[in-house]
Amino acid sequence: MARTLDSTPAADGFRMPGEFERHAGTWMLWPQRPDNWRLGAKPAQKAFAAVAAAISQFEPVTVGVNSEQFANARRMLPPQVRVVELSSNDAWMRDCGPTFVINDQGEVRGVHWRFNAWGGLVNGLYFPWELDAAVAQKVLEIERLDRYRAPLVLEGGSIHVDGQGCCITTEECLLDEGRNPKLTKDAIEDYLKIYLNVEKVLWIPRGVAHDETRGHVDNLACFLRPGVIALTWTDDYSDPQYERSAEAYEFLSRATDACGRALQVYKIHQPNPIRIQPEEAEGVDIVEGTLPRQPGHRLPASYINFYFCNGGAIVPTFNDPHDEAALATLQRLLPERQIIGVPGREILLGGGNIHCITQQQPE
Amino acid sequence: MARTLDSTPAADGFRMPGEFERHAGTWMLWPQRPDNWRLGAKPAQKAFAAVAAAISQFEPVTVGVNSEQFANARRMLPPQVRVVELSSNDAWMRDCGPTFVINDQGEVRGVHWRFNAWGGLVNGLYFPWELDAAVAQKVLEIERLDRYRAPLVLEGGSIHVDGQGCCITTEECLLDEGRNPKLTKDAIEDYLKIYLNVEKVLWIPRGVAHDETRGHVDNLACFLRPGVIALTWTDDYSDPQYERSAEAYEFLSRATDACGRALQVYKIHQPNPIRIQPEEAEGVDIVEGTLPRQPGHRLPASYINFYFCNGGAIVPTFNDPHDEAALATLQRLLPERQIIGVPGREILLGGGNIHCITQQQPE
Repeated sequence: MARTLDSTPAADGFRMPGEFERHAGTWMLWPQRPDNWRLGAKPAQKAFAAVAAAISQFEPVTVGVNSEQFANARRMLPPQVRVVELSSNDAWMRDCGPTFVINDQGEVRGVHWRFNAWGGLVNGLYFPWELDAAVAQKVLEIERLDRYRAPLVLEGGSIHVDGQGCCITTEECLLDEGRNPKLTKDAIEDYLKIYLNVEKVLWIPRGVAHDETRGHVDNLACFLRPGVIALTWTDDYSDPQYERSAEAYEFLSRATDACGRALQVYKIHQPNPIRIQPEEAEGVDIVEGTLPRQPGHRLPASYINFYFCNGGAIVPTFNDPHDEAALATLQRLLPERQIIGVPGREILLGGGNIHCITQQQPE
Repeated sequence: MARTLDSTPAADGFRMPGEFERHAGTWMLWPQRPDNWRLGAKPAQKAFAAVAAAISQFEPVTVGVNSEQFANARRMLPPQVRVVELSSNDAWMRDCGPTFVINDQGEVRGVHWRFNAWGGLVNGLYFPWELDAAVAQKVLEIERLDRYRAPLVLEGGSIHVDGQGCCITTEECLLDEGRNPKLTKDAIEDYLKIYLNVEKVLWIPRGVAHDETRGHVDNLACFLRPGVIALTWTDDYSDPQYERSAEAYEFLSRATDACGRALQVYKIHQPNPIRIQPEEAEGVDIVEGTLPRQPGHRLPASYINFYFCNGGAIVPTFNDPHDEAALATLQRLLPERQIIGVPGREILLGGGNIHCITQQQPE
């Protein structure tokens, strides 16, 4: 039964597990809108299909698709991927999907956050977003899972947890004027503690430069396991990312988690600057109210925007000299997993990457 | 995995079970179109919700809903009913949904028939019907069940099986010019044998008078169990239904099933004539290409259009003097089941009844 509960995960003994814990499967959405994805989203659809295909080698994948793209998505996705009708305004399951929580008996429920397209009428990326805002509920209905309705505007990409009481996020994102302007930092932290069931929130100052989410932590840093963090990095002092990564490194290196552990922080060097090419920008519809895609605009490319799946990790690559080192470092840090690189440029052109388009459902 | 198979149920050892066998659950759709359902479908939605609520006391129910009605359907349906997004042109899950088949190992698959809105461009009831035509596939995707694609235009309401090799249908419906005009009766029978995995097809001449499906057997007769049939009836010689029911009675009483059993046929007297009232017709949009709802038009009311669920049977009632006898007779014939009457007039106004809006998924 998919009830809407009046209680909270903390009160009911449910917690968000780490992404690196076992999954029952992965949820994704299907890209479509021509004012965000070039050439009628055809290149992006291929990129998403490649991600779904890669993950489906490790665990079940479900892709939610708007009615008019159902037949095409079904054809483009491999047969082991489940395709369900599920309307959305865009395709960021990480951000509009549910945050799944579990209890010690292995029961699973979902947290349905408020969603306002990364900033609502203040600085959101498109309008309207009413379908995105219903995605979490629809996912939970399909799975017959109970739902917590959290009174907080939050996207899944703005948090990471270690499953042992610690959450990382950024001040840049969660204190942004477009999300919860009436809530204090303490009030937001209290909601995170209650709905993720964590004891400690580590507030990294800022996320990745040029990130239109304004600070999503999932492009900057993630837990590889409890106590161990990977951080996007650059050695180029002149790159706007340098001071952001340096300040995050300093902050995290001095932090302790909810269990009192000092954090080990591993740096993953970012790719060389990636900019929107004129022929890429040209393929995107220009629509008032949607963030335009300008030629020459720098994109927030990061290998940290990868996705854990059972026995694997799916990592974006950029046809860049740093790809090899990033994959090798992750393989060294995650020896128990198969590291799979999947081209991420077409996803990045839409504003995110592999982690942004996936959402894990724990086992 | 939801593969599309090139083989057939008969070749793979799958058969359609009787509706009276155990279900894993029930599928329904949500009424919406204002050119078929009066007053923006609000009275029909209440009626469908009452049916879903009644069935959900016996087994899991899933209701597929168009995107724009999702929130309203979720609110109107009880919490134990699962609501999923699933676009359709109208709400007849019996007719556009999959026919589920099982094998001796308890595996379940689905048959996806061709659908053309009860007659396509020849004598169909509305245009277009492309969403209805995809419903079966979408149901099977959600359930991760393999699919047979049958090369035959057929609605689920035009067949009933006993689960032991016998199918009943009508010539009026299956030989109709709007469905499979290029196929002979023998060819159609062969497809039924292959896709339902039956050995014998009993061709009743005609269905119920005034039935816009032109002969769906599910409004006329059904199996209560192997060897036992219930038939809609009237004692009124002047009623156009009389000769139809009499000819069916005569046909069925002389027939034997696939096991060689003579059939026992029980009559269930129909309600008094029900006609569309002017205030009912007035609430329906008039749209070119959709069958109009005319005041004074006689409706094909029948108690046979009921639905088996685990331990129960959900029977339409019409606030009619015959209601009591119909419910009592069915209770006598089905002593092991709880017989539940649910008002059917609002569903009947749209062209069918409880059986037409439900589809069983076997256990």
